[in-house]
Amino acid sequence: MSELLATYLLTEPGADTEKKAEQIATGLTVGSWTDLPLVKQEQMQKHKGRVIKVEEREGTAASEKQAVITIAYPEINFSQDIPALLTTVFGKLSLDGKIKLIDLHFSEAFKRALPGPKFGVYGIRKLLGEFERPLLMSIFKGVIGRDLSDIKEQLRQQALGGVDLIKDDEIFFETGLAPFETRIAEGKQILKETYEQTGHKTLYAVNLTGRTADLKDKARRAAELGADALLFNVFAYGLDVMQGLAEDPEIPVPIMAHPAVSGAFTSSPFYGFSHALLLGKLNRYCGADFSLFPSPYGSVALPRADALAIHEECVREDAFNQTFAVPSAGIHPGMVPLLMRDFGIDHIINAGGGVHGHPNGAQGGGRAFRAIIDAVLEAQPIDEKAEQCKDLKLALDKWGKAEAV
Amino acid sequence: MSELLATYLLTEPGADTEKKAEQIATGLTVGSWTDLPLVKQEQMQKHKGRVIKVEEREGTAASEKQAVITIAYPEINFSQDIPALLTTVFGKLSLDGKIKLIDLHFSEAFKRALPGPKFGVYGIRKLLGEFERPLLMSIFKGVIGRDLSDIKEQLRQQALGGVDLIKDDEIFFETGLAPFETRIAEGKQILKETYEQTGHKTLYAVNLTGRTADLKDKARRAAELGADALLFNVFAYGLDVMQGLAEDPEIPVPIMAHPAVSGAFTSSPFYGFSHALLLGKLNRYCGADFSLFPSPYGSVALPRADALAIHEECVREDAFNQTFAVPSAGIHPGMVPLLMRDFGIDHIINAGGGVHGHPNGAQGGGRAFRAIIDAVLEAQPIDEKAEQCKDLKLALDKWGKAEAV
Ligand SMILES: [Mg+2]
Ligand SMILES: [Mg+2]
Repeated sequence: MSELLATYLLTEPGADTEKKAEQIATGLTVGSWTDLPLVKQEQMQKHKGRVIKVEEREGTAASEKQAVITIAYPEINFSQDIPALLTTVFGKLSLDGKIKLIDLHFSEAFKRALPGPKFGVYGIRKLLGEFERPLLMSIFKGVIGRDLSDIKEQLRQQALGGVDLIKDDEIFFETGLAPFETRIAEGKQILKETYEQTGHKTLYAVNLTGRTADLKDKARRAAELGADALLFNVFAYGLDVMQGLAEDPEIPVPIMAHPAVSGAFTSSPFYGFSHALLLGKLNRYCGADFSLFPSPYGSVALPRADALAIHEECVREDAFNQTFAVPSAGIHPGMVPLLMRDFGIDHIINAGGGVHGHPNGAQGGGRAFRAIIDAVLEAQPIDEKAEQCKDLKLALDKWGKAEAV
Repeated sequence: MSELLATYLLTEPGADTEKKAEQIATGLTVGSWTDLPLVKQEQMQKHKGRVIKVEEREGTAASEKQAVITIAYPEINFSQDIPALLTTVFGKLSLDGKIKLIDLHFSEAFKRALPGPKFGVYGIRKLLGEFERPLLMSIFKGVIGRDLSDIKEQLRQQALGGVDLIKDDEIFFETGLAPFETRIAEGKQILKETYEQTGHKTLYAVNLTGRTADLKDKARRAAELGADALLFNVFAYGLDVMQGLAEDPEIPVPIMAHPAVSGAFTSSPFYGFSHALLLGKLNRYCGADFSLFPSPYGSVALPRADALAIHEECVREDAFNQTFAVPSAGIHPGMVPLLMRDFGIDHIINAGGGVHGHPNGAQGGGRAFRAIIDAVLEAQPIDEKAEQCKDLKLALDKWGKAEAV
């Protein structure tokens, strides 16, 4: 019988953790148990949750007691969709004291009901024809209130610097100045021109926004217009909404999952979801071709172990295509050696200010990043590379090299 | 110019809170500011966020520093929908240290884009013809794995005890044993029979589940079948999804918002959303006719101040109908005096075990609750009422009276 396994971190679980675990396993499935007549117990056996593991451990801070428990939920109890799953394993339970959902293990049957990334790491690489280095992405800067000509010029400058992907800012919405469809069509034209000029291909991820009920039509229209990728604030909507986009055959466009709002349910060490589960596994299973999250090094940073765990979930052997991990926020060229040490070849280096703030503008910023990526790949000393690439030297002079954390 | 005001609680905000607030106001709107040329600053003025308030205060625990800040975001920057709002005011910012979004103040213009409850407190009362007492709701017990005949019998027993509303368990999904449409149709028949027998009207809230893209059709079908109300796990889907249901004229059915999963983003004192904002204001603005949340008294409990604050947001003077507050979890008859002291007449007393666990079954449980509600309304001593109503006496003997917290 198929089961879904949920693993929780309990903080101050009370005197008897075994009993607490048993209460969860029973309470969230068949309800009461011991007061059922034996014949009823037999009928209900296949619906009853099971305690798989109870592991006490010392808490990290203030020596509070912690425990990691794993409960198996029979899949016969719920429909194979994410809202049903979340309600079952972390519905009422999310309200019941210091409890954090740290992992889920899906049956093969449930996995078959989920889409995974349509393109994934390899699919994105094929779109770009780049297979052997981390990709480089940059972000529009200060787009609010800017008009279309400004947006177009920013797009051109970024592409000319040699970045592989350019994404909208996640707070860029439909406000009339530079509408969604216009950005796609005109952006495509700019990137065609820069490709003709440089021979380097760049993809543009446009922010898919609006009411939930309108997203599919809007995304289909984006696909018709030839959009390269869709940026999506999945946690302002819901994982099931992203899944709906990912599994729609009329939306053959990569999805870039932005972590906006996710801090509200991942940041606490005691409550909510683990980073790896939400930004790694669930994003991947529900169809994110890219998952953005704070790197361990920038202005808004995650603990290194959490960032690595997200990446691991994005690329580990599984039934689905791999998701491109995109450690982000405050990235400058001097961080690239650390990022490549931590995340290897198959990730995306993503910069905003580290591209636009370059003394030679976005073009210089792009060139500096590309140069240091090459240096790391070729094991060339950074200072030697900086002698050959003036843009890299300027970047390192401005921002320095990042220290390991 | 219309602005949306967001109020945050910062814990350990760093040395200069004023500067931090200014960085948020600028960073989440126009991006950079001081390095813009003056003519550009003038153009961008209407897009720039403003710091409204910065209030330092002593933290509650471990004497850490806290601050409450309010930022005004120009509404010209984003579309009038909840995902855009959340991404703007708590997107990247939710990832940036110890920060909790505690309140939002909407412009009248934005409010006009939101539905509010279709029925609200008065509309629900009209459906029931009950205007002068708290309503009484009970929940199916241990429904997983039970077949339709079991469900129907439970429904009948609860209704015969005099409850006003009966709700599905939130973990009751489509699994074939008792499908959604069948539950609506057959449930209606049972409640017609109990009404003919007792003259007391009872509404049944059926759990609306499944994939996001299918919900509207499913809800419309429920309306055609005459469903009394829809239970909805809004936080497993998204507020915008509930809004879509609430504003659909083809779904003229009250929506009962369940708090499943919400603990993941309200429980931490340092991160996520305040209870009052999420379970009170946003639920109401997005169309919840009922909002369930843990009471201060039961097995799963909220701090009393938080529960009162949710209720206050549900009923305060505003552009929308009032939402019925439903403090829940582990409620038994002995808690009714405290619940009525805290939440007054316009709330719903909601019990599961406190109805079904009664020595005289669900009928006895319902009668005990109704009796103690009457006693409180008439200022009759509880012990005197218990002498007149054996079911109340049995309930008080079993569960006792609740102590104030
Ligand atoms: Mg951004
Ligand atoms: Mg329940």
